[in-house]
Amino acid sequence: MEDMLISKNEFIQAQKQAKAMLDRAGIVLTEKEIKNIEVADLGLARLQEFGLEVVVYVNTDRVCAKELVLFPYQICPEHLHPPVAGKAGKEETFRCRLGQVLLYVPGPETPHPKARIPEDKKAYLHVRHEIILNPGEQYTLPPHTLHWFQAGPQGAVVSEFSTTSRDELDIFTDPEIKRIPQVGA
Amino acid sequence: MEDMLISKNEFIQAQKQAKAMLDRAGIVLTEKEIKNIEVADLGLARLQEFGLEVVVYVNTDRVCAKELVLFPYQICPEHLHPPVAGKAGKEETFRCRLGQVLLYVPGPETPHPKARIPEDKKAYLHVRHEIILNPGEQYTLPPHTLHWFQAGPQGAVVSEFSTTSRDELDIFTDPEIKRIPQVGA
Repeated sequence: MEDMLISKNEFIQAQKQAKAMLDRAGIVLTEKEIKNIEVADLGLARLQEFGLEVVVYVNTDRVCAKELVLFPYQICPEHLHPPVAGKAGKEETFRCRLGQVLLYVPGPETPHPKARIPEDKKAYLHVRHEIILNPGEQYTLPPHTLHWFQAGPQGAVVSEFSTTSRDELDIFTDPEIKRIPQVGA
Repeated sequence: MEDMLISKNEFIQAQKQAKAMLDRAGIVLTEKEIKNIEVADLGLARLQEFGLEVVVYVNTDRVCAKELVLFPYQICPEHLHPPVAGKAGKEETFRCRLGQVLLYVPGPETPHPKARIPEDKKAYLHVRHEIILNPGEQYTLPPHTLHWFQAGPQGAVVSEFSTTSRDELDIFTDPEIKRIPQVGA
């Protein structure tokens, strides 16, 4: 917490907001998980615009599963997962549970994308091929693939099934971003 | 379907029953996923006692995620996941979403276990260390570990996060069991 740029109050409010959305998605958490909902402001201190809220269920040296919460129009900025120690980088499947996710990946630019991008950060969101995920829809992203995503107007809850997460190794396009420190309670 | 011992009618009823439980857990599926809910009678033709219903979200050569549905007191019989091609076997995390799961693993025998075991199959359920999972609770099983599980009186919906699934290689204790053929619609 002490490493974040957002205030303690904003952090607590973000946890509450995330919990309310997970409730709406019918996702049951333990008391400990609720207390430890991660609020990642990515060092930008613009949490309602950029960042995400995370519950990590499991992260072993083989498998990881998480719930991701995005507030309305909140953006998880462009990044990729590089190879680690000669092994392929993180492979991720995103499955939308609630709301809508606008996912952007390499490919032909979508002519009229639905994302709302703050003007000053447009240069850091290169990939513009849009994939829209509604509840029950999913997409599997190969390793080492640039991607970013934004929630629609109602926010989103997204299950992530992946190989091991090593957030500290993620490569973000925006040089202002610091993935770590990220913060649990 | 033609390889199963249960009738087509029982198969369709089992899919409907599984879908209703997934609905109660708040889990949204696509039409295609609903049509393809797997009903595994394991070749025993005693589906309400032994077997499980499965939705596979993703199964790549690295990661697998599924929802498992168990009817009230339905048992997924004892088995283990062996090493494959010199690599460790399947590692699984079970997370209970709805109802209750009684999971049995190696360890000190639990004195008064809650499971209800049909008399004729007792010999094929060796491990008797009980772990009870209520909604929001989970357990990670190492590779190559004997285990079996049974739903409580309300049945159960369980998310499984794991390495690659290769069901055809699972080793069941009961020689009567045939994991494959298992059947989707």
